[in-house]
Amino acid sequence: MTDLLIRNVRPMGGAACDILVRGGRIDRIGPALEAPGVPVEEGGGAIAVPGLVEAHTHLDKTLMGMGWYENVVGADLRAMIDNERAERRRLGHDPRRQSMRHALALAGAGTTHVRSHVDVDTENGLAALEGVLATREDLRGIVDMEIVAFPQSGLVSRPGTRELLDEAMALGADLVGGLDPCGIDRDPRGHLDAVFGLAERHGRGIDIHLHEAGELGAFSMEMIIERTRALGMRGRVAISHAFCLGMPDWVRTEALLAALAEEDVAILTTGAPSREVPSVRRVLDAGLRMGAGCDGVLDTWNPWNRPDMLDRARIVAQKNNFRSDADVELALHVCSTGGAAVMGVADHVLAEGRPADLALLPGTTLAEAVATGGPVTLTLKGGRVTGRQGRPEREAP
Amino acid sequence: MTDLLIRNVRPMGGAACDILVRGGRIDRIGPALEAPGVPVEEGGGAIAVPGLVEAHTHLDKTLMGMGWYENVVGADLRAMIDNERAERRRLGHDPRRQSMRHALALAGAGTTHVRSHVDVDTENGLAALEGVLATREDLRGIVDMEIVAFPQSGLVSRPGTRELLDEAMALGADLVGGLDPCGIDRDPRGHLDAVFGLAERHGRGIDIHLHEAGELGAFSMEMIIERTRALGMRGRVAISHAFCLGMPDWVRTEALLAALAEEDVAILTTGAPSREVPSVRRVLDAGLRMGAGCDGVLDTWNPWNRPDMLDRARIVAQKNNFRSDADVELALHVCSTGGAAVMGVADHVLAEGRPADLALLPGTTLAEAVATGGPVTLTLKGGRVTGRQGRPEREAP
Repeated sequence: MTDLLIRNVRPMGGAACDILVRGGRIDRIGPALEAPGVPVEEGGGAIAVPGLVEAHTHLDKTLMGMGWYENVVGADLRAMIDNERAERRRLGHDPRRQSMRHALALAGAGTTHVRSHVDVDTENGLAALEGVLATREDLRGIVDMEIVAFPQSGLVSRPGTRELLDEAMALGADLVGGLDPCGIDRDPRGHLDAVFGLAERHGRGIDIHLHEAGELGAFSMEMIIERTRALGMRGRVAISHAFCLGMPDWVRTEALLAALAEEDVAILTTGAPSREVPSVRRVLDAGLRMGAGCDGVLDTWNPWNRPDMLDRARIVAQKNNFRSDADVELALHVCSTGGAAVMGVADHVLAEGRPADLALLPGTTLAEAVATGGPVTLTLKGGRVTGRQGRPEREAP
Repeated sequence: MTDLLIRNVRPMGGAACDILVRGGRIDRIGPALEAPGVPVEEGGGAIAVPGLVEAHTHLDKTLMGMGWYENVVGADLRAMIDNERAERRRLGHDPRRQSMRHALALAGAGTTHVRSHVDVDTENGLAALEGVLATREDLRGIVDMEIVAFPQSGLVSRPGTRELLDEAMALGADLVGGLDPCGIDRDPRGHLDAVFGLAERHGRGIDIHLHEAGELGAFSMEMIIERTRALGMRGRVAISHAFCLGMPDWVRTEALLAALAEEDVAILTTGAPSREVPSVRRVLDAGLRMGAGCDGVLDTWNPWNRPDMLDRARIVAQKNNFRSDADVELALHVCSTGGAAVMGVADHVLAEGRPADLALLPGTTLAEAVATGGPVTLTLKGGRVTGRQGRPEREAP
């Protein structure tokens, strides 16, 4: 286990001090610490924050390092799903190699925890899952990874998918995924019963993509809450995107937020610029756990997202019209401590006794670090240096 | 006047060729051009596009190079306006120096044309305008600059402002500005009559900030169109932001777009992530001229925007949910040729006989250049190199 003395850093942008790591945990935080024989990292006055948390991504989708992908599909959800399923083969997409590239890029950019959805479908079977499972094993000690078995192409509308998800859970996936119970499967009851059934059978949590907007999304959200309550799954369900919470009807969304809070359903956002999205402040004020993610990075869906949670904090902040330093810090919180809470890491903070999972950011204040966008100068996972100047210590394949 | 041979570039991402500049204009575009004695720039296979056009910014506001500005104001428009007016003095803001920093950064990032609003108010008088006018003079041959005399703090509600705007136009401002006729002055008729009156008196065009959303914005927009028609100002009025065109009522906005098209009123967008914004495709399909801008950069309003129109093309694309390569090219068009058309440069394209105002972008395709975000490898203004690798050739103060 790692021992390390980090000199001259400013926890959360406060006064400069040292951080002593022993056995992979933060042993002491204070001025002028001494630890003879312990290796030293010079922090240079950088801001120390808890490791960034990528809580919604798709490690099995990226085309990083495979050249420019010309997108001729546009923005129709069904078309993007069908296109990707077909393109995986045509492009010779290797989920093992690609998920390594993606996850290591995240580590280089300050990330210590990742929740990734991984496609499971009747065309590509469990190939993507097997690749990402191998990457998770390989990167143990670099990133903590949760895997969601994700029926991207539909579940009850594609016979055989349920059985594959069952197998995926047995193979080591951590959560059952789902998406758009109305929009994709056109059978909200069937879809959600299948998702919750699998979760119950394997004793696992759930993370459902909900792109459905307005009242349609609200309806699906209610059905998710009903099942969470009925099956006693309080605190074990997350909803990703949850665009419907961004609809203008505040009375309606206030009620939805209260119902979500009762069942401790977590919300994951990407701050999607082109969509209505949940308000960070309202979600947190309602007492919900909230995290964020970059979504797919350089894939057949879009070329926009970067594997960088500091960049994501900026996107989330801008989408929420955050301008004051205090508001910007809230966006950063969601990209770190907030996301960790969704992943079941209850106390992801810089404190003595906690794992030495942290990132050093350049800048005088947290808000400046978000606005200028790094690069993150150092990433530590369990006290081990996993990234420097925005780049991973370990070379990607 | 400048002669230059640019070797090995790909106009609009097409086949590689050379571009010969003579007397500041594009003389020939073709393969293996010869021009003995003419200096040569090696393009390295980069994509050549018409110079980027920053068509909505505030050169007099930036705090670039003045250290981190802690924002405690938040997102209320009136509060942001009042805060800035007071802070200019406290911070010792020098509009001459700051506008130089901002404009040169734009030039370094591929920009050849800039339209800047400049604050005119009874507290700071014409100081900002004088600073930006001096910068415009200083940067002649580096960027073509249009200046909008902008009553940021209100017009008819602040006695003395009208007279200052009058003076500003006489001093050399190119257009009369205005903002939120209902929201700020609380007197749409008074505000717009004053703006159009000044424009008529000085024989100049108009560019009005319209943040007002939904029906309120639509009402103000109608009043702008009415006055444009009544005063015979067809083709000489632009509306910046025009958030109301992003409202969900497509029947209503379709009618507004048709009315705008009749009077050839141009639209300028920033692709603001947190607001409803005009759809690029709908605005262009309606036959309107449309440009884009980064808005204020690192100022008392927000820390988000960068002086970089390639970055802005990405933001506009994301806001419009553009994903296919063809759609992304449309966002880039708006940030170049589209914005030029708003500034009265009707034919801002790479063609023989046109001024040699162009930018070289890295990447295999236009969409890749937007997605990866540069840096722009070379900026040319009238054939003169004004930027390299994202940095201005001339050092900023």
